[in-house]
Amino acid sequence: MQYIHSAGLSLEGGGTIAPVIIAFDMAGALNHERSNCVLVFHALTGDQYVGRANPATGRPPWWSRVVGPGRILDTTRFCVLCVNVLGGCMGSTGPSERDAAGRVYGAGFPVITIPDMVRAQMAVLDHLGIARVMLAIGGSMGGMLALQMAADFPDRAGAFALIATAARHSAQNIAFYELGRQAIMSDPDWRGGAYAEAGTFPRRGLALARMAAHITYLSDEALHRKFGRALQARDAVSYGFEADFEVESYLRHQGERFVDRFDANSYLYITRAMDYFDLAAAHHEVLANAFRGARARFCVFSFSSDWHYPPAESKALARALVAAGADVSYVETDTDKGHDAFLLEEPEFERALAGFVNRTAALAGIAAGISGGIPGGSGANDPA
Amino acid sequence: MQYIHSAGLSLEGGGTIAPVIIAFDMAGALNHERSNCVLVFHALTGDQYVGRANPATGRPPWWSRVVGPGRILDTTRFCVLCVNVLGGCMGSTGPSERDAAGRVYGAGFPVITIPDMVRAQMAVLDHLGIARVMLAIGGSMGGMLALQMAADFPDRAGAFALIATAARHSAQNIAFYELGRQAIMSDPDWRGGAYAEAGTFPRRGLALARMAAHITYLSDEALHRKFGRALQARDAVSYGFEADFEVESYLRHQGERFVDRFDANSYLYITRAMDYFDLAAAHHEVLANAFRGARARFCVFSFSSDWHYPPAESKALARALVAAGADVSYVETDTDKGHDAFLLEEPEFERALAGFVNRTAALAGIAAGISGGIPGGSGANDPA
Repeated sequence: MQYIHSAGLSLEGGGTIAPVIIAFDMAGALNHERSNCVLVFHALTGDQYVGRANPATGRPPWWSRVVGPGRILDTTRFCVLCVNVLGGCMGSTGPSERDAAGRVYGAGFPVITIPDMVRAQMAVLDHLGIARVMLAIGGSMGGMLALQMAADFPDRAGAFALIATAARHSAQNIAFYELGRQAIMSDPDWRGGAYAEAGTFPRRGLALARMAAHITYLSDEALHRKFGRALQARDAVSYGFEADFEVESYLRHQGERFVDRFDANSYLYITRAMDYFDLAAAHHEVLANAFRGARARFCVFSFSSDWHYPPAESKALARALVAAGADVSYVETDTDKGHDAFLLEEPEFERALAGFVNRTAALAGIAAGISGGIPGGSGANDPA
Repeated sequence: MQYIHSAGLSLEGGGTIAPVIIAFDMAGALNHERSNCVLVFHALTGDQYVGRANPATGRPPWWSRVVGPGRILDTTRFCVLCVNVLGGCMGSTGPSERDAAGRVYGAGFPVITIPDMVRAQMAVLDHLGIARVMLAIGGSMGGMLALQMAADFPDRAGAFALIATAARHSAQNIAFYELGRQAIMSDPDWRGGAYAEAGTFPRRGLALARMAAHITYLSDEALHRKFGRALQARDAVSYGFEADFEVESYLRHQGERFVDRFDANSYLYITRAMDYFDLAAAHHEVLANAFRGARARFCVFSFSSDWHYPPAESKALARALVAAGADVSYVETDTDKGHDAFLLEEPEFERALAGFVNRTAALAGIAAGISGGIPGGSGANDPA
C-alpha cells in the first residue's frame, strides 16, 4: 500500500520533498473505533513487511515471532501497521526513487533525519484517520523513531515500547556507520551516487558496509557459540585467503545477500539520520525535557550482551523518563545473543513484552485475542 | 640492520622462503655475557623501531614510554632488540619485497604463520650469538609471538611478558580482520595483489581496513571521552556526508595516514597469520600442554576495557600457565582506554611492568640502571 502525500514534507535540514510517497503495510483489521492500531517502526535495513511475506520478493516477514495471528502482536486482535521509512528503498520516497522531474534522486536526495521520518509516518496515520495508536513499538533504529514520536507527538500513542535502542548514537556507533559509508562511497561503482544513470551498483562497498554492521549486531559470545573457530567445509586450514573459517563465509554471505535487497544510497542516508539522532541535544541537553508531560506508558527493553546499543544507554533512557514523571518500566534480558536478540527466540523478553502489550490493550479496552501467547519455533531470519 | 638468512625458512603451510632477509633494530649495548637482551615483539602494524625513531622516515618510536634511557626497558642497562616480522614491510622479507628471481612477491608470497615468524626471529638470535634473552615481551600480536616462543623455544628466554593478547583469535577478531581483507581485496587497485607491477595501490581498501581495526583498538568509553558527539570545526551539523563529527574525521585521518606507511599485501598476510593462531589447537586442544616444562617466569597483563583481546582471554592464558606448573602472575589494569592502553599512559600497568622487568633483571644478575623508573609525559603516538 502507498500513500501519496501531495503537500510534501519540509525537512529539518532544509528543503522540501514533494510529493512524498509513503509505502506501508497493514496486518489485521482496524476496529470501528480505530483504537487497536499498533505502529511498528522497522530498523535500519527493515521494511514494512513486519507480519507477512513481502508480496513482491516473497521474503519472509522480519518479525514473525512477534507479529501474527496468536502472536504477541496478535493480528486477530490488533491492526499492525508498519511504514517503510522516508529515505528507504521499499516503495517510500528515497534516493533510489525519481523526483518530480522524473530523475532518480541519487546523491541529490536531501539529507533526512529521524524527526523527518516520524512526520512522514504521522501523515500516514492522518491519512488512515488514526488519531492515536494503541502502541508504538520499535527496536534498534525503530526504537529511535518511537522515541522521537514520544517527544514530538506524545499524545498519538497510548504506550511506547523501546527495544534495544538509545536516545542518541554513541561515538562508536557513528564510527561503525562512517566506516560503512566510506566503504560505499569509495567503491568506484558508486559514481558519486549516480550509479543508477551509470548502470552500475556499488556491490562491493555495500557488502562491506553490511559486514561491518553485522559484526555489531552479534555479541562476541554469539559469534563464538555460532562459529567459534570452526572451519568451513574442510578438515584443516588451507593456508590461503579463501574463507577458511565459518565466520568468514557467513560474513561474506551476509554481505552478498544484502546487496540484492537494499539500495546503497538509502544506506548512506538512513545511517546518516541515525548518526544525527540526539534527543537530548534537541532539548537543551536534558533528555528528560524530551518527555515532559508524557501521559503514555513506556517500557524500555535491553539485552545484556548488546554492545551496539548497550544496556547503559537504555538505563539512561529509563532514568530520563522517570525524571520526566512518565510511567516507565525497564526490562533487561540476560542473553548472549547481542543486539539482534529482539529478533530471535528470547522467552524472557517475549513474556515481558506480551505482558506490556496485553496490559496496554486492556487499558485501551481491546478484547482479548485468540491467545496472545508466546510463539514456539525458531526466530526471524534476518537481523537489524 | 638486516640479517640475510641464506638457508631460508621452511614454512608451516608448506614451501620455503630462501633467502630470508630479517630487518631488526637494537637499542642499548649487549653485555659481555650476552645476558641482557630484551626481545620485543611488535604488533600487527608495528616495526622494529621500538625505542628510537625510524631513521628512514623519521617516524617516532612506537613504544617510547617503555623503551629508552631510564625507562622501564632501560637502554642504558638492556640491549633491546626488535625484529620486523616475516611478511612485514619494513625491511624483512614480505610480499612487497622481491623473490630470488627479482620479482615482487605480491600475492605469490606464501601464507605464513606466527610460528614461522618466531622461527625467523630465533634465526636473528642465533646470528647475534644470543642463546637466551633475558626477557621476551610483546603486546597484541606481539604477545602472540611471545606465547609461540614460550611454546616452541621455552629455554630461550628467562621470562615472558604477555600484554593485551590471547592464545587464539576469537570469532569476532577473525570477523574484523576478514572485513579488512575483503576491503583490500575488493579495491580494484589491488589487482589480485599485483599492484606493484600495475603501478597502483589499494589505498581505499587499506584505509578502510585500518578504520575497521582502529575501532577495535579503542573502547567505547575512550571514543566517547575523546570525541563524544563533538562536531568537527563547525557549530551545527551540516546535513551532508562530510565529516560532521570529530570521530569521523579522526577515522578518515587514521585510514589515510596508514596507507603511506604500510603495505596492503603485508596487511593481508599478517592478519591471516593472526587468524590462524590457536596455540591450544596445536597442542591437542589443551592450552596448558603448550607450556609443559616451562622454566621461565611469566607475567600476563590485561586491560579491563580491552574488547579486542578481553581480560577473559588473558585469564584463560594465566590459568593454563598455572596448570602447566609455570611461575605466572596476572595483572589486570582498570582503564577505559581499551586495547591500546599498553601504548598509552597507564601508571598502574607501567609500575607492574617495571616491577616484573626489574625482578627479571635481578634474577639474571643485570646491574641496576640509571633509574628504571616510570616515564612522565604523554603516550606514544600510534596504536597497535
